[in-house]
Amino acid sequence: MAGPDAVDLGFARVDVDREARQGLPEVVYGSGKTPDQIVAIVRTLLRHNDGPVLATRVESDAAASVLAAVPGGSYDSVARLLVWRPAAPTGFGVVVAAAGTADLPVAREAAAVATAVGLGVTTVTDVGVAGLHRLLAEQDRLRAADTVIVVAGMEGALASAVGGLVDCPVVAVPTSTGYGASLEGITALLAMHASCAAGITVVNIDSGFGAAMAAFRLARVAGRTP
Amino acid sequence: MAGPDAVDLGFARVDVDREARQGLPEVVYGSGKTPDQIVAIVRTLLRHNDGPVLATRVESDAAASVLAAVPGGSYDSVARLLVWRPAAPTGFGVVVAAAGTADLPVAREAAAVATAVGLGVTTVTDVGVAGLHRLLAEQDRLRAADTVIVVAGMEGALASAVGGLVDCPVVAVPTSTGYGASLEGITALLAMHASCAAGITVVNIDSGFGAAMAAFRLARVAGRTP
Amino acid sequence: MAGPDAVDLGFARVDVDREARQGLPEVVYGSGKTPDQIVAIVRTLLRHNDGPVLATRVESDAAASVLAAVPGGSYDSVARLLVWRPAAPTGFGVVVAAAGTADLPVAREAAAVATAVGLGVTTVTDVGVAGLHRLLAEQDRLRAADTVIVVAGMEGALASAVGGLVDCPVVAVPTSTGYGASLEGITALLAMHASCAAGITVVNIDSGFGAAMAAFRLARVAGRTP
Amino acid sequence: MAGPDAVDLGFARVDVDREARQGLPEVVYGSGKTPDQIVAIVRTLLRHNDGPVLATRVESDAAASVLAAVPGGSYDSVARLLVWRPAAPTGFGVVVAAAGTADLPVAREAAAVATAVGLGVTTVTDVGVAGLHRLLAEQDRLRAADTVIVVAGMEGALASAVGGLVDCPVVAVPTSTGYGASLEGITALLAMHASCAAGITVVNIDSGFGAAMAAFRLARVAGRTP
Amino acid sequence: MAGPDAVDLGFARVDVDREARQGLPEVVYGSGKTPDQIVAIVRTLLRHNDGPVLATRVESDAAASVLAAVPGGSYDSVARLLVWRPAAPTGFGVVVAAAGTADLPVAREAAAVATAVGLGVTTVTDVGVAGLHRLLAEQDRLRAADTVIVVAGMEGALASAVGGLVDCPVVAVPTSTGYGASLEGITALLAMHASCAAGITVVNIDSGFGAAMAAFRLARVAGRTP
Amino acid sequence: MAGPDAVDLGFARVDVDREARQGLPEVVYGSGKTPDQIVAIVRTLLRHNDGPVLATRVESDAAASVLAAVPGGSYDSVARLLVWRPAAPTGFGVVVAAAGTADLPVAREAAAVATAVGLGVTTVTDVGVAGLHRLLAEQDRLRAADTVIVVAGMEGALASAVGGLVDCPVVAVPTSTGYGASLEGITALLAMHASCAAGITVVNIDSGFGAAMAAFRLARVAGRTP
Amino acid sequence: MAGPDAVDLGFARVDVDREARQGLPEVVYGSGKTPDQIVAIVRTLLRHNDGPVLATRVESDAAASVLAAVPGGSYDSVARLLVWRPAAPTGFGVVVAAAGTADLPVAREAAAVATAVGLGVTTVTDVGVAGLHRLLAEQDRLRAADTVIVVAGMEGALASAVGGLVDCPVVAVPTSTGYGASLEGITALLAMHASCAAGITVVNIDSGFGAAMAAFRLARVAGRTP
Amino acid sequence: MAGPDAVDLGFARVDVDREARQGLPEVVYGSGKTPDQIVAIVRTLLRHNDGPVLATRVESDAAASVLAAVPGGSYDSVARLLVWRPAAPTGFGVVVAAAGTADLPVAREAAAVATAVGLGVTTVTDVGVAGLHRLLAEQDRLRAADTVIVVAGMEGALASAVGGLVDCPVVAVPTSTGYGASLEGITALLAMHASCAAGITVVNIDSGFGAAMAAFRLARVAGRTP
Repeated sequence: MAGPDAVDLGFARVDVDREARQGLPEVVYGSGKTPDQIVAIVRTLLRHNDGPVLATRVESDAAASVLAAVPGGSYDSVARLLVWRPAAPTGFGVVVAAAGTADLPVAREAAAVATAVGLGVTTVTDVGVAGLHRLLAEQDRLRAADTVIVVAGMEGALASAVGGLVDCPVVAVPTSTGYGASLEGITALLAMHASCAAGITVVNIDSGFGAAMAAFRLARVAGRTP
Repeated sequence: MAGPDAVDLGFARVDVDREARQGLPEVVYGSGKTPDQIVAIVRTLLRHNDGPVLATRVESDAAASVLAAVPGGSYDSVARLLVWRPAAPTGFGVVVAAAGTADLPVAREAAAVATAVGLGVTTVTDVGVAGLHRLLAEQDRLRAADTVIVVAGMEGALASAVGGLVDCPVVAVPTSTGYGASLEGITALLAMHASCAAGITVVNIDSGFGAAMAAFRLARVAGRTP
Repeated sequence: MAGPDAVDLGFARVDVDREARQGLPEVVYGSGKTPDQIVAIVRTLLRHNDGPVLATRVESDAAASVLAAVPGGSYDSVARLLVWRPAAPTGFGVVVAAAGTADLPVAREAAAVATAVGLGVTTVTDVGVAGLHRLLAEQDRLRAADTVIVVAGMEGALASAVGGLVDCPVVAVPTSTGYGASLEGITALLAMHASCAAGITVVNIDSGFGAAMAAFRLARVAGRTP
Repeated sequence: MAGPDAVDLGFARVDVDREARQGLPEVVYGSGKTPDQIVAIVRTLLRHNDGPVLATRVESDAAASVLAAVPGGSYDSVARLLVWRPAAPTGFGVVVAAAGTADLPVAREAAAVATAVGLGVTTVTDVGVAGLHRLLAEQDRLRAADTVIVVAGMEGALASAVGGLVDCPVVAVPTSTGYGASLEGITALLAMHASCAAGITVVNIDSGFGAAMAAFRLARVAGRTP
Repeated sequence: MAGPDAVDLGFARVDVDREARQGLPEVVYGSGKTPDQIVAIVRTLLRHNDGPVLATRVESDAAASVLAAVPGGSYDSVARLLVWRPAAPTGFGVVVAAAGTADLPVAREAAAVATAVGLGVTTVTDVGVAGLHRLLAEQDRLRAADTVIVVAGMEGALASAVGGLVDCPVVAVPTSTGYGASLEGITALLAMHASCAAGITVVNIDSGFGAAMAAFRLARVAGRTP
Repeated sequence: MAGPDAVDLGFARVDVDREARQGLPEVVYGSGKTPDQIVAIVRTLLRHNDGPVLATRVESDAAASVLAAVPGGSYDSVARLLVWRPAAPTGFGVVVAAAGTADLPVAREAAAVATAVGLGVTTVTDVGVAGLHRLLAEQDRLRAADTVIVVAGMEGALASAVGGLVDCPVVAVPTSTGYGASLEGITALLAMHASCAAGITVVNIDSGFGAAMAAFRLARVAGRTP
Repeated sequence: MAGPDAVDLGFARVDVDREARQGLPEVVYGSGKTPDQIVAIVRTLLRHNDGPVLATRVESDAAASVLAAVPGGSYDSVARLLVWRPAAPTGFGVVVAAAGTADLPVAREAAAVATAVGLGVTTVTDVGVAGLHRLLAEQDRLRAADTVIVVAGMEGALASAVGGLVDCPVVAVPTSTGYGASLEGITALLAMHASCAAGITVVNIDSGFGAAMAAFRLARVAGRTP
Repeated sequence: MAGPDAVDLGFARVDVDREARQGLPEVVYGSGKTPDQIVAIVRTLLRHNDGPVLATRVESDAAASVLAAVPGGSYDSVARLLVWRPAAPTGFGVVVAAAGTADLPVAREAAAVATAVGLGVTTVTDVGVAGLHRLLAEQDRLRAADTVIVVAGMEGALASAVGGLVDCPVVAVPTSTGYGASLEGITALLAMHASCAAGITVVNIDSGFGAAMAAFRLARVAGRTP
């Protein structure tokens, strides 16, 4: 038995009460799970909840198997995201700002998850601080956002620069791009924490998903989730 | 000259436009500054802005000198915070949850800064995960919050537990409490990022100030700042 | 020559006296050994001892070769464990608690080794601290255990929570699941050591084997090994 | 209010139910607390429980103040431990083995805490592996133990050696002794985890307290606590 | 004996040929040397060379003793620098850009050393990337430089931003300012290396001296040293 | 839209103004980009600028596709560099000094990039400090350089030795050669920063490109770029 | 040109004077070199010197090509070592002691290189400190050695134990065996340095070659090389 | 009781058999011991052995107390070493080579310990690789040594350079001199291990004592100890 709020599948105990508790069903972390395991969890979530159902970090082969078994879903191969029953869009506007081309897959995960849970998303790319004029050209778009998700690897400096430009919440996602001293994203993570811009917050390396969920929590407190 | 928006004091270039740009004047980071430098910056901010003026990480001796030179301020010796012209309270409710007694100074900095910028603050203490019943006894208070600031050192597990209990934004502050494997807060910082709870965000070690400023940004987007 | 208590196979010196000394024959660490080497050591152990003989971290191809050469054994492909002459079950009850689905292979190694050496094992899964109600639903089972083995990656917070719920020994196994700030299990290892719960102990990353052997030592001192 | 099981002192929420739940009252971690805070918590624990009350990491000045305010206690200045109402000795025998003279303060904390909670303690010192004959001379004493606590800094090799000599539980405490490559105890902690001896477990750096509490949990499961 | 090009003082072997070889006498690293040792080396350098003689990282007490013993020198207490026979100014223009007030002592060391060896120095302060308008207000001055020395701690992002604004050499000096994730300057050092701006170079943490010497080498190759 | 100075390709925003601003078009970082993406950026750069166009870290398969689509380029398979419209050689002389054979690919990247942007390049190899006579045999060549790029892995000691031999700028490139304690180049990077030779500067691990661009900046300030 | 003592092959500058200078020709580090490069260097060394010629870290395919091109050599596939003209054995006796089976390839490299340069080698295996009786059974053999090379991964404790048993030089080789807290050999390297046994020395991780060369230097000073 | 070969002083178990076993009595590590403890151990060693008795890392105050209580000893305040009954000098020649002035205290510990145990010691200073001519001027002295102890902090490059110049054993001692990227000696330790010079060995950071003891072991195998 798995408690009143969970369905026990043997290999997993699905938290079917989370939608009531947190406004969104549990999200399936696909990495390390077989397609059969993903299918079983997704079916359980679809059955016991009404909201959007997501599976992250699913490679394309596995995604095809899962979609065949559980119809009605869609797959974003850059974001590696499966979605069923996406939420209707709300008026909460998120800008995802990616420092460079190499940061785009993570930015796409952030954007696709945020969209699936009902946020309005705009993406701006290639606005790294080594080309400030490209960043400044996007100032108006950034300042109009309800939340900015900054996606940057290497030295992660974009988070500080954006933090100083806007007054809304800034969620920084360090990425594992770069080489050598980038230390697989550790340098960007530390640098974002050491930032001289006050009040920016940080999520795990490459976690576009985490940033989107943080934005979802913000939208809830602002009263703008579905 | 320091640009149209800044007042150049020689040793510092005060950003007097920040209030217009971000809703709050620049905050003085007291560590490493002389009382005279703090006085000069605070006077400049009081003159060019209307909102609250804060100086963080000011030791008590320095605070006394500064308060004597710039009347009208108050000092919180646990938070090591100086405040002039605190904002009127708004309806945005922040709960600061501290895992243990040793985390209280950082929790106090978070609470005092948040209060000074107009947020409504409640503090709950000693709710570390090794005594889950103490945490669960505070569930209702946590769930009523607009934002929870979790302050925890050692293994930082409180952030994950709170992240699963509430649906509002959770800002985690790792602290440098503990010894040995705590690595001066690095372990808590990493653990909070690795958390299994979706959508929690993290600020720098011991940065109660950073968490409060993150909450202020949230309050702005929720339309509940002064 | 290899001393009175060891059989020298050239590439290894098998400690055939360990059963007399420590109650259990030497266990073969399969990683990096050829099937022929494993066969030779297992045969030596079976010949010179009476108790259970185990080989850990054996991949399925190698396992098949070894089983063909040394009949009477069984293989658990999730735990990657080979066992001959498993011990009869005793009354010492171990609960293996796994935080998430990704931790199951390590949990299975712990459970399979513990079972093979005669302990009574129950496994509970998906009880990470981000869903406290799932953990609390298992309280009675955890409190009835003689020892709890906690298997958790990411931030490893489950160890602290369980440590506060039960009064029996808690052996924590950090796992290398997660990404980014999880640092291949280092973060969980450090966090478990920094834990605020008193008296929990920790073994190496991914070492389900080590935790089971620790439990076996506990069962001996409690007078409940075969 | 602090929940039915806790007494709220404002700066701390004392877990007065722990004795019922885990067989031993909460232990006060003295580091970073004022004498007044320690006094208040100790009084609360003495009033609401019947068992031994301990405060660890209390420097001698603070200890004198606390003892003056709360009579009936005793102080061990090497272990930096305050004890009221020590438990009557039971038949559970712990050997604390310290590798070198520099490890003695941590060994003493382990021994003093274990004694205070009712375990029978013997200490052997200066048995580092660079002098194997000194270690082997203590074999009989080690083998007669119900549990061995190994206290060692530098390379921490004693844990492996003892792990191979005895069949009872071995709890290893890395210490911050040594210099340079010892990395304040991190090297010993890692080395103890990497140990080639099966089934030894590890606690935090310098945590004699943690090791003693782990032994207390063992004694409970062996049915030999008061 | 110390070779034809060195004077052996017992505790040091002064490289009196360096001026001929590299255009500048050896510079005395004052940290860890007694005033008497500094005096002896400075005298040797003054006697055997014609150019400027510098001693870095000299605290004020020691500086007073040295100046009393070797007349004709001057001391900068912020830069902790002693100078005899400063070079005449040349037309090579260096801008030292400091991110924040806390970076000023390192910036001052860079400026004072550069001035002493004959470079023309301008300092701009408080131009961290969290206030881009302050940085942009200094664009013209930065673009007019022959070399920019960027002094920044915390996340070190200023180096990337400046690297993108100017076409001259940029030498970045990470500083040990900040706390927590700043890791005493390691984060800034790594971030500056991971920078997305092409062709910026980095010197050791807090080494204003190193940056000034790098600028001196640049001035030589540009044909603009005395 | 991408601002007046950038061409927005969707996945990238090409900085076509950089040639005017910094004397050289943006360089394409090939790693992680598809051949199609590289082709699009290269075409944009060729169209909007007049100078050399480079793409670094392009594997040979991708290079063939790109060259087929954008004629007129050449590929260096050791340096993994694509070049169109190389600059005419100027009189600025760079010596690339490689410590060992394993450092040659990085040295080649430095040499090929430097040549493509118009610098005069000589390479000397196998001059590691464990064979000082080989290094000293190259003294004259090193001293004649306008800039020396030192490429060295393992302990990176060549940078210190060269820094003491020459008076021109020295740019050190740590490489990821070596094993064990070399830590993938981190050791060389740290060692080069800790160097006892004054005024040498360092770029990222394996970044022959970064060193060449630093040399280009030097050539500009010396007035010797095209 | 490569100086009077070196032959320049373009990609390498062979130090043909090393035999005269250090008693042994340069040894070829095979990793990262093509078979053709190895062939060219080996031929140069055979032509210009009289002593043994070695190439380390050569995989079996490459070894076959090289042996076909340069007859007279032999290959040890476990040690991955190629040898031409091995030295005649001398009376200098080296014992290579390996802690476990997984350490054998590194032990074999040490033994094969030492043999090739004329030392007398005995190997003892599986003498890790978790089975002290196996180590003690080899005491006589260890004490008869002129030098002991200790090869151990995981916690590296064997070095301390051997250091206390013998009075001759002990050269410790940490290996990258083990998992988790072993950190690819870093833990063993640090632990060996922190060892409580006086006068043991350490070489790089997995460097059986380095240990053998250290032994060769010892044999020279003892007057017992060919 | 402490075994037949040890004298138990309660806080320490003195290994009085070590002189017979290893040719030299146990050496007292003074750090963390009280003068009374040092006195007791030194007296025990003087009584039970005939050879030299040493206590390392003894501060001057403690040294004075110990010398007053145990006459006949001498104290070297730079090396922080106490010696009784120094050995007569033998013909084994050690050169201690220190890279810079800041390395002298560690060099002095190496020299003083080596002298006390009967080796012939010469010290050369200030021969860092940034001034190769100073190193080369000492070539003859280095080549005449039986063993060279290299003492160097910062980047530790001197070990590689000396390793290539001499054919005798080279023992490298990294020191904690330098700042920033020197990481308290860790960088030098790693760099010395990563060295391109074959057969050099390394001891712990700042361990002049360890290097001297390694040299003593070498002298024994060369047959040149008293």
